[in-house]
Formats: sequence, C-alpha cells, structure tokens
Amino acid sequence: MRKSAADRFRHLFNRSLILLRHRHHHHPFPSSSSLSPFSRSRFFSSTPFSMASDSPFPVTAQNINPKVLKCEYAVRGEVVTLAQNLQKDLQANPGSHPFDESLGQQPITFFREVLALCDHPAILDKSETQGLFSTDAIQRAWQIVDQIPGRATGAYSHSQGVKGLRDTIAAGIEERDGFPANPDDIFMTDGASPAVHNMMQLLIRSENDGILCPIPQYPLYSASIDLHGGFLVPYYLDEATGWGLEIPELKKQLEAAKSKGINVRALVVINPGNPTGQVLGEENQRDIVEFCKQEGLVLLADEVYQENVYVPEKKFHSFKKVSRSMGYGENDITLVSFQSVSKGYHGECGKRGGYMEVTGFSAEVREQIYKVASVNLCSNISGQILASLVMSPPKVGDESYESFNAEKENILESLARRAKTLEDAFNKLEGVTCNKAEGAMYLFPQIRLSQKAIKAAGDANTAPDNFYCKRLLNATGVVVVPGSGFGQVPGTWHFRCTILPPEEKIPAIVTRLTEFHEKFMDEFRD
Amino acid sequence: MRKSAADRFRHLFNRSLILLRHRHHHHPFPSSSSLSPFSRSRFFSSTPFSMASDSPFPVTAQNINPKVLKCEYAVRGEVVTLAQNLQKDLQANPGSHPFDESLGQQPITFFREVLALCDHPAILDKSETQGLFSTDAIQRAWQIVDQIPGRATGAYSHSQGVKGLRDTIAAGIEERDGFPANPDDIFMTDGASPAVHNMMQLLIRSENDGILCPIPQYPLYSASIDLHGGFLVPYYLDEATGWGLEIPELKKQLEAAKSKGINVRALVVINPGNPTGQVLGEENQRDIVEFCKQEGLVLLADEVYQENVYVPEKKFHSFKKVSRSMGYGENDITLVSFQSVSKGYHGECGKRGGYMEVTGFSAEVREQIYKVASVNLCSNISGQILASLVMSPPKVGDESYESFNAEKENILESLARRAKTLEDAFNKLEGVTCNKAEGAMYLFPQIRLSQKAIKAAGDANTAPDNFYCKRLLNATGVVVVPGSGFGQVPGTWHFRCTILPPEEKIPAIVTRLTEFHEKFMDEFRD
Repeated sequence: MRKSAADRFRHLFNRSLILLRHRHHHHPFPSSSSLSPFSRSRFFSSTPFSMASDSPFPVTAQNINPKVLKCEYAVRGEVVTLAQNLQKDLQANPGSHPFDESLGQQPITFFREVLALCDHPAILDKSETQGLFSTDAIQRAWQIVDQIPGRATGAYSHSQGVKGLRDTIAAGIEERDGFPANPDDIFMTDGASPAVHNMMQLLIRSENDGILCPIPQYPLYSASIDLHGGFLVPYYLDEATGWGLEIPELKKQLEAAKSKGINVRALVVINPGNPTGQVLGEENQRDIVEFCKQEGLVLLADEVYQENVYVPEKKFHSFKKVSRSMGYGENDITLVSFQSVSKGYHGECGKRGGYMEVTGFSAEVREQIYKVASVNLCSNISGQILASLVMSPPKVGDESYESFNAEKENILESLARRAKTLEDAFNKLEGVTCNKAEGAMYLFPQIRLSQKAIKAAGDANTAPDNFYCKRLLNATGVVVVPGSGFGQVPGTWHFRCTILPPEEKIPAIVTRLTEFHEKFMDEFRD
Repeated sequence: MRKSAADRFRHLFNRSLILLRHRHHHHPFPSSSSLSPFSRSRFFSSTPFSMASDSPFPVTAQNINPKVLKCEYAVRGEVVTLAQNLQKDLQANPGSHPFDESLGQQPITFFREVLALCDHPAILDKSETQGLFSTDAIQRAWQIVDQIPGRATGAYSHSQGVKGLRDTIAAGIEERDGFPANPDDIFMTDGASPAVHNMMQLLIRSENDGILCPIPQYPLYSASIDLHGGFLVPYYLDEATGWGLEIPELKKQLEAAKSKGINVRALVVINPGNPTGQVLGEENQRDIVEFCKQEGLVLLADEVYQENVYVPEKKFHSFKKVSRSMGYGENDITLVSFQSVSKGYHGECGKRGGYMEVTGFSAEVREQIYKVASVNLCSNISGQILASLVMSPPKVGDESYESFNAEKENILESLARRAKTLEDAFNKLEGVTCNKAEGAMYLFPQIRLSQKAIKAAGDANTAPDNFYCKRLLNATGVVVVPGSGFGQVPGTWHFRCTILPPEEKIPAIVTRLTEFHEKFMDEFRD
C-alpha cells in the first residue's frame, strides 16, 4: 500500500494521461473495474485535448488539478450542451429544428409576493401595495424584514443564515417530523449542492476515504467526491424490485471496500430517488439507520424531493424522524439532511435556496463546518427567505391559503399524472421497461439495445445510451440524459427523463418519442 | 524532498497535533517561519479540542479533512463571534452593553425596484405598479424577464449565467475599459468567493503549488488556498509607501518560493486593496502585468472595489484594460477579474451576486472551468440580475437617472468623508499610524503596543492585536478585526476598521475609541 510521493505523483499523472488519451472509465473500483457502473462515454469530450506542451497559455489541461479533470457531471454534460446549441440555433432561426418546447411552470404566487416585498421593503407601507399583494404576503414580508438584524436587507447574514428564518425552518421540521429541531443545526446554503460539497470536503481526506453512493445516483455526488479526491463506493439499487435499497447489498459493498483498504465514512441515500423515483418504506429506512449506526457511518440524506410523492401507498419520512422514532437521539447517530427550494411543487431552481440540518456532530466538528460555511460569508438572502417559506407555507385561515393550496395541488396532481403518462408510454415501447415513479421528478427507463445499435454507437465513438439520446434529441428535440452519467449495471442502458414538461405537451412528446423509437429499433434491428 | 506516503501522513497528522496543542503559526514558510506573516493568534480557538478517541461521534476533529482544520477565516473569526454574542445579549437585554450600533445603508432604489419586479413579474402590467415603481425600472424588468429563456424566472440558468445578462455585463466592461469584452468569458457566481474557489481548485494540484498573495490580504485567499491544499507565497505590501506593491518584492518572494521547490502558478492582486485601502497606479499595474507575462503566472485580479475610489489623484484601471493597452491580447496573458455586487456604492452583500471575467485560457481549460461551474448548476438569478444592473446602471435621460445618481454620489461622498475622519482620528492616537484610505472600505492602522500590553496578551493566551481588539469590543462595542488574520510584518500589530458605520455615528465612535485607547495605553504603559 505504501508508495513514495513521487510514485504517487507519477501514478496520478499517468492516470490523467490515460483519461485523456484512452478515455478510460471513471471510477476504477480496484478489483472490479470491468463492473464499473460508469460507462466509458463519460470521458468523451467534444473538444479534443492537445497533448502538445507548446501552448501559449500557462494553464493547460496537463497542468490543472487532476481532480477537476477527473470529475464529470452528466446532468449538464454533452447531450445538454448539444440541446443548448440547438436552442441557440432555434432562437436565431426559428423553425430550424423540429421542436419549440420549453419547460415552464408558473411560480407559486404567495412565495413570489413575499420575495418581491422583501426585495423592496420601501413599498411595504404604500397604499398601492394593498391592491397588488395579498395581506398575508405583506404581513409575512414585514415579519421577515423585522427578523433581519437592523432591517439591513442588503447586509451579509449570519453564515448559517438569518436566525429568524432558521427558527421558522426548525419549526417547520418539527411540525413535519413530530420531533424537536434546533435552529442552530440549520446551515442555509445556495441550493443543496454547496451543502453536499461542504460535507464531502469535511469527510474526505484522501483517495482512501470512501462514500457509499447509490447507483444510479445524482451525479452531484460523484462529481463532489471526485473534486474532493475521495472514493465513490457504489451500491446498486435493485431495478427488479422498483429500485430497492437492499441492506445485504450495502453490507457487501462496504466489506468489499474495506477489504481494499478504503475507509468508508458515509452513506448517501437519495429519498425520493434521483434519477430513479422510488420512495423508501419506513421499515427499510429503519434498517438503513441501524446499518449506519452499527458501521459508524454518517448518513447523508438527500431529501430534496420530500414534497414529491405521487402514490397513495407511499409517504415521505425524513431520516431524522425515523431515527428519532427508533430512540436514537442527537448523540447516537450522525445525520445530515439536505433540502432545496429547487424541487417540491415550487421548483424555484434559480433562487438557489436550501439548507442542511446537521445532527450528531461534536461541538468541535460543528465549529469546523461553520468555519467552512463562513469562508463564503452567507448564502443569498432571497434563497434563505424562500427556504423559510417552503418550510412554513400559508396555513388554513390565511388569506392566501386557498389560492396557495390550489396552486400547489394543481402542480403536484399534474406531476403525478405526467409521471404516470410517461411511465405507461415507456412501458409500451419495444425493449423498454420502466419502474413506477413513486416520487421525485424523474423516470429512469431501461432500454435494451440491439447489437447493431451498440456497434453503431461504438463506430460513432460513443456509448450506446448516449448514442440513443443524441439521436432522440436531434430527431425530436426531446432532451433526456443518458444513464451512463448516473451509473447503471454494466451492460444495461437507461436514460433519465424528467416529468417536468407542461402537461398539455406530454401527448405530443409521447407521440414523437414513440415514432422515433420505432424507427430507431427498425433501423438497428439485428 | 521525497517521503513515503506513511511519513507524509504522519507529518500531516503531527502537524495537526501541533496546531491543536501548541497552537503553532499558520503558514510554515520553509526557511523563514520566524517571519511568517500570520500570527499564532489565528489558532486560538474558543472551544478546547478534546484529543480523546472515545467520542460517541464517528466524525471527530481528529479524523476530518486536515485542510479544513488548517483553514482559518479571520473576518468571521473570534472577535466577530464575540460581537455576535454581544449582539444577542443586547437583543435579549437592551442596555446590557454600551453600544447599539448597526451598520445600515439604504439600498439603491432602482436596483431594488428591478429585483422586486423580476421576482414577481405577474405585477409588471398591473396599473398599480405604475404608481409604485419608476418607468425605467419597469422597462428594465421587462427586458430582463424577456432575456430569460421561456421567461422561466424559476428555472436554472445556463451555468455561466443568463446569456442576456452576460451580454449586458460585457457591454458594461467594454464601456468601462474601452476594449472588447466577450459574454462567453463571463462566469456569474454567488458573490466573488465561489469564483476565487473555482480558480484555486483549478490551479492547485498539491502543496507544492503556490499562489502569490499580498500581505496583508483578504483572508478568503488564505482560506481558499488552505482548503484546496496549496501553498500561500506571501509578498509584503510596503506600509511605508502607502501599502505599495513593489516588483522587487514580488521577484524576491517568487525566487524564494521556487528555490524551495514551490511551483508558483498565480499572483493575487487586490485593487483597490483589502484590508489596506490603497489604489494602484497605472504604471505599477503595467509592471505587474509584465511580471506575470514574464513569469507565466495567472493574474488573479480582485477588482471588487472598482467603484470605491475616494481621492481625486487616483483612478481605478482594470487589469484587463491595462494589459490590453500594453498590446497584450487574449493569447498573451492569462487574467481573471473578480467583481461582486457586495461592494461599490450599492453594497448588496446579501444578494450574493458577482462574476469573474476569464481571459487567456485555452478552450480545453475553459471547458474544465465550465464543468466545475456546472456542478453547482448556476448562481442565483437575483444576484445575476443585480450584477447586470451594477454594470449597467441608469443612464442620463432615464427617469431614474437623477435620483439614482444622487443616491450613488451621496453614498460615495459619505464613504470618502468617513474614511478621512477615521484616518485622521487614528493618526491622532498615541502609537498609531494609519495610511490614507484611497479606496475600498477599510483602514488598516498600525498600533505600537507596549511590552506590558504584549505580556498581558501572552498571559491571556492571545495575540497582542487580538487582545487589543477584544478589549475594544467589550469596552465600546466597536468591532475591528485583528491584523493577524490578514497577515502583517512579524512584530507589527494592526487592525482592520471598516468605514461603513453610518456617518452620523462616526463622531461618537471616534470619541469612544479615543477614550478607550487612552485608557488602554495608560493601563499598559511600560
């Protein structure tokens, strides 16, 4: 295991060269690289790398941080870039591509009213404001502005977020879970991503530190682990049982990692699942908590889709509630819950609001988490305000309640119908199977591709799922993300499809997709 | 130079122990540790670290990322934490401490109008809106909403920021500099901090990669270098010449670092200076550009105080303008300029808006910068909008122009007066000298402390400047940040004082400070 520093450097350098030249796969899991869940396609870059050292620039792909080079991020990867370019063409030359869709959900009125008033509190006591904004939005805005020390809405907040807003969030968590929440446990962040980075930065010391991640996973996790130089220890969700999270699989992968000298530090669970859409059962969650407790793992619970559950037989339970209901208190289990304003029924992605609730860390480690948060001063105040609204929406009796609730239910019911329509459509396609979308915002159908299609992908120097998705995009304008970016059982092919397109456009999307798929299957029939 | 991995681990681990136990200094610059610009005080922590291994928590200060442990961030450090606690006490028990100040600057009306309208575009065409908002704010909001693809104000933007807003920013840079700017060179970020992290992450591969930083410096730089595991190569600003940035000093420190095997990759210049307040002359900037060009260094130009220049004999020149006026184009010099909405006359810290303009990188490296930006999806849209407004404020003839300009000039003129008043007050204190605040928002006076005061600080287990600042805070409620967090010539003591308190409160602050200082000097007279 012991190598000299120079050897390690050469090893890293050579690995970078392999990545660049041979475009090798992503996570060389020591003894099972042939079973890597990440396909080679993640390293196909649209720009050829020059290996020449006569660059006029002092910074080259050969002398940047190899961790940056290694990291990949499929959600904004090749297919999405291609889609953006098509979008630009379309704007420049309307009609040049056969699609004109854009996702577009109306924002929740109450939330936007409060945000606007907090942005410009000077109008709070103007008479015209009464005619433009609901009474409870005005009241809420006053309350929030008063919670900001000195009403200094332009100032930095406390690095964990405005205390009054954290109080509101903690109260919202208590109401959700039925167990106490402490405002000092809340760290507000610009969306959930910086919170995840903060934790990875804290836990990862070297490439020997491992983080158990589901496969398929949301690629923020693999990207963050790569950027912080750690090791992704994959565990497979079982597609056959509706993307089940099985404890024996966790144990098997943990033992395999340990036997290779990997020090596994944390378990990432995404519930409801991204990209897989499953919602964990409470019993299963208890087993997961017990597993983390027994193995001394930090439980990193991605709970950003907590509002997005579409089937009556399932319900969201936070891991905090589950662990507290098992009798595990603050000192018994180390648990971080991530929440975001980008999901739910509100979907306010651009506001970059979110928080992590951090429990079961010693005071000295908490101080380190705080220190790292403080280096970036604070998260944006609009995002903080929105996070507080999401955790404390209008209540029965408030002026906005009925309209708020109608907006919310319309969106959630529509998402549930869209999920079902797309799921049914995928399951009707030749060679495609798709699990139920119980929650979140995605479907992750499996597509069985012919040998001819796989060969054609190889000839085009790309992975089969990437090949399929690019063809789909070019033919129909429908953007789906290849499964290889999320990880999948080697030899299987998937894509992630959001359920976010406007409901009235879904039938046309299904028609186009079905037509494309039939042609594709015919073209590549073995 | 070559050590085994185990030796290196032991070395790191022992270093952590020293840091924790003996509270050793920060940057052990190989052959000159006695001249380290960072004082011991940065490692005094308010929470004693337990070294016991029987913690009930799986994560302890002994097994987190040592880079996190190493990083310090003085601006939100001990004195600020103490101030926050005093503030809490004050809110709970009004009158319990002898101060009741809070910074508070009225926001720029036009900016907040546009932000509010973009937050809630549903009111854009309501008649009441005409009575509440200026016509050009309504027009600008329409224009911005139209620039967002699909008017989806809740969606993620392009990872570099909304294209239309980047167009506006690029046009603003062109107008400022008289040289072209490319919207594709703009990466919008949540304040300038994430942009700095992005660059450090890109450039730093190991502790052998060095970044030249001014001493004193804004501690974001030391914190970011620590978090990414690099080496801070200090260069001293010359206090005797008004915090002059001297090329021979840069050369000397570069050579010293090189001779120790440090691969110096970039030069950080903060202009106008933080915490030092100096504004660089154009001739000096040309020399700096030439130095970077000759040495193959990336020039990281922190230009967030570009609007904050208070003396008629100095003017802000961007490093891009200076390098272009020298004939150096895109392929001749690698230059990153950081800008933020938190500074200037607007001071919108809580909005977390900012950008970096990235020039002189190859396409393949640009792609890597983009990839890392995309892992966090996008910066917050309100911050993006505000950054576009800052770079394109109302023009002569616009309805808001006169009131906007009056607000802006009032603030800048007031800041200039505050800077002069505080500078004069400091220079009247016994044993204190203070350079002119030509720009930015700070003064960094030097205080010559008696042997008795230094001994008292030692007895209180803290650094002399920290001792002085804590005494000042407790006695007067005035918060200043000890110089040790910014770095200073060893054996000298400073503090950073902002010029941001409301102007009408400055005389009282000066009185209290003067009274405190006289008593302090009397108490500790040798």
